Amino acid sequence: MTSSPSPRPAPIAMADVTAARARIRPHLPASPAMSYPLLDDLVGHGIRVWVKHENHLPVNTFKVRNATSALTALLARDPAAAARGVAAASTGNHGQGLAWAGARLGIPVTICVPEGNNPEKSAVIRSYGARLVETGATYDDAIARCDELVATEALTRIHSTNNVDVLAGAGTMTAEFLEQVPALDAIILALGGGSQCVGAIVARSDMQPALEVYAVQSEGASAQHDAWRDGVARVGQAVHTFAEGIATGSTYELTVDALRDGLTDFVLVSEDDIAQGVRDLLRITHNVAEGAGATGLAGLRALAPRLAGKTVGIVLCGGNLDAGRLKTILEGGTP
Amino acid sequence: MTSSPSPRPAPIAMADVTAARARIRPHLPASPAMSYPLLDDLVGHGIRVWVKHENHLPVNTFKVRNATSALTALLARDPAAAARGVAAASTGNHGQGLAWAGARLGIPVTICVPEGNNPEKSAVIRSYGARLVETGATYDDAIARCDELVATEALTRIHSTNNVDVLAGAGTMTAEFLEQVPALDAIILALGGGSQCVGAIVARSDMQPALEVYAVQSEGASAQHDAWRDGVARVGQAVHTFAEGIATGSTYELTVDALRDGLTDFVLVSEDDIAQGVRDLLRITHNVAEGAGATGLAGLRALAPRLAGKTVGIVLCGGNLDAGRLKTILEGGTP
Repeated sequence: MTSSPSPRPAPIAMADVTAARARIRPHLPASPAMSYPLLDDLVGHGIRVWVKHENHLPVNTFKVRNATSALTALLARDPAAAARGVAAASTGNHGQGLAWAGARLGIPVTICVPEGNNPEKSAVIRSYGARLVETGATYDDAIARCDELVATEALTRIHSTNNVDVLAGAGTMTAEFLEQVPALDAIILALGGGSQCVGAIVARSDMQPALEVYAVQSEGASAQHDAWRDGVARVGQAVHTFAEGIATGSTYELTVDALRDGLTDFVLVSEDDIAQGVRDLLRITHNVAEGAGATGLAGLRALAPRLAGKTVGIVLCGGNLDAGRLKTILEGGTP
Repeated sequence: MTSSPSPRPAPIAMADVTAARARIRPHLPASPAMSYPLLDDLVGHGIRVWVKHENHLPVNTFKVRNATSALTALLARDPAAAARGVAAASTGNHGQGLAWAGARLGIPVTICVPEGNNPEKSAVIRSYGARLVETGATYDDAIARCDELVATEALTRIHSTNNVDVLAGAGTMTAEFLEQVPALDAIILALGGGSQCVGAIVARSDMQPALEVYAVQSEGASAQHDAWRDGVARVGQAVHTFAEGIATGSTYELTVDALRDGLTDFVLVSEDDIAQGVRDLLRITHNVAEGAGATGLAGLRALAPRLAGKTVGIVLCGGNLDAGRLKTILEGGTP
């Protein structure tokens, strides 16, 4: 796919990533990039692994970059709209990121979730002063309610993927990572909506064109992987994964082509592989990764023979793993 | 004790802390100070809690400050001694900190541990290229072996507490914290050897004289607490705590007087309180605290009524909790 004869224009340019970095800098410090000799030993094949600790950012995830990028852009472009507020349907990290950024920037945030949403996540969203609307039985119900509120209250919708400022915010992670570790040969990213991968593809074009960008999904939620392989968009494909951050059943208009043009490869890993990644990251780094936050390591282990001798970056994030599922994983199981 | 009629000179001065900050800055970034609305809710009494994430430093603990301070000082003062190497007896964080700093600075490090030392910790020490000497059945045996090696190989001993450069390194945490959160009224610190508390007492004298400094120990390892109360030094008092970082049965020459003169108060918490602290920090911050790293929160909860309405700092660190004990804690137990 990297040799596609006529690459289509990317949804964002490097200038957008650079502008996003400048906007988020007053709010978010650079997250650390760290190496662990024991992780190198685990992965083997002479690979030097760098871990980008996105879990050290507020709300423990790179999604806070996306949200802060989008809200600072809105504030600059249309202060009246920012004052009216923003809305999104989200069950997890995107909602938490928006709630944090809204509190920081003084922008009212509304997050729509299905009834019975994970109480811990709902509590975090509320704790930052966001309005939490619990509605309907499914995520689609939450989306429908969000659509209503956007219309009736003149709110600005911030989609978790189909938003150029969100994509630019996601790109700041890779731009920062390449500055911290210029020797990176490859980066391996868990893929949910695709913002982080598209951000990496755009950042590499300017900073490190030889950087290989690999995407990873769970076998239990492979919609984007399947679409990348066969070119057929997916909507509402079933998802069965404990890695909520990548439990995506659809492709997204704004990322699907850029992924097909730009990814070096796209691999699947099992749920057990992901659980093993959580255990290994905990043992070696003493950090809690959520499922999606350990998926990069699972992908790296699958790809390791191909990446022998290279310097490889993975991303650790961790907002979305509650104590019950962590307990199951520590007992050797898979949630 | 704060109104002691004739305060004795502190073992270090603010100039030592400032010099240590300059020495460690090229090697260690500032650790983040973060607040969590849900943690404020948990603690109650209108207290605003700031968490200093020392677990985001290499080897997950402030001990890396102490080690880096000591080794950079040695390198500047006596490069030949640095080239011969340093030695310490340690079962945990101090040894990991020295191993990391030695690898970073090119200084050979020898760590003596008892036979059967926690294999995970031994693996980390070795992974940074340090020589690990397993010897004897007890920590005292490891100390004796360290003494021999210091004598026969002309190594420099780096004691975890009785070392002015270690104390100055520990002081950098509070100096950094006070710059990040000038509004701090109080800081609550788990106490093992006392380096962090003495560092805080010295840093406050220059930066924020009104800062209250509270120490916390486990009821199961209360030697320093008991000595602080009755003025009688302790040696080899029994310890029963899963919080290895504060499993100290003795007082230390270089910290005991400064603690008696400078601590605002010294409280004990139960092992169950510490385990609850680990659970609460995991649920709210998604960070793993070791026992000693959750003891500050346990102390804060005990002290909360006295600190109503104040802005209070605690320290989270987390290198010393293996998966087995974390599992026990997540199951609601106390290791």
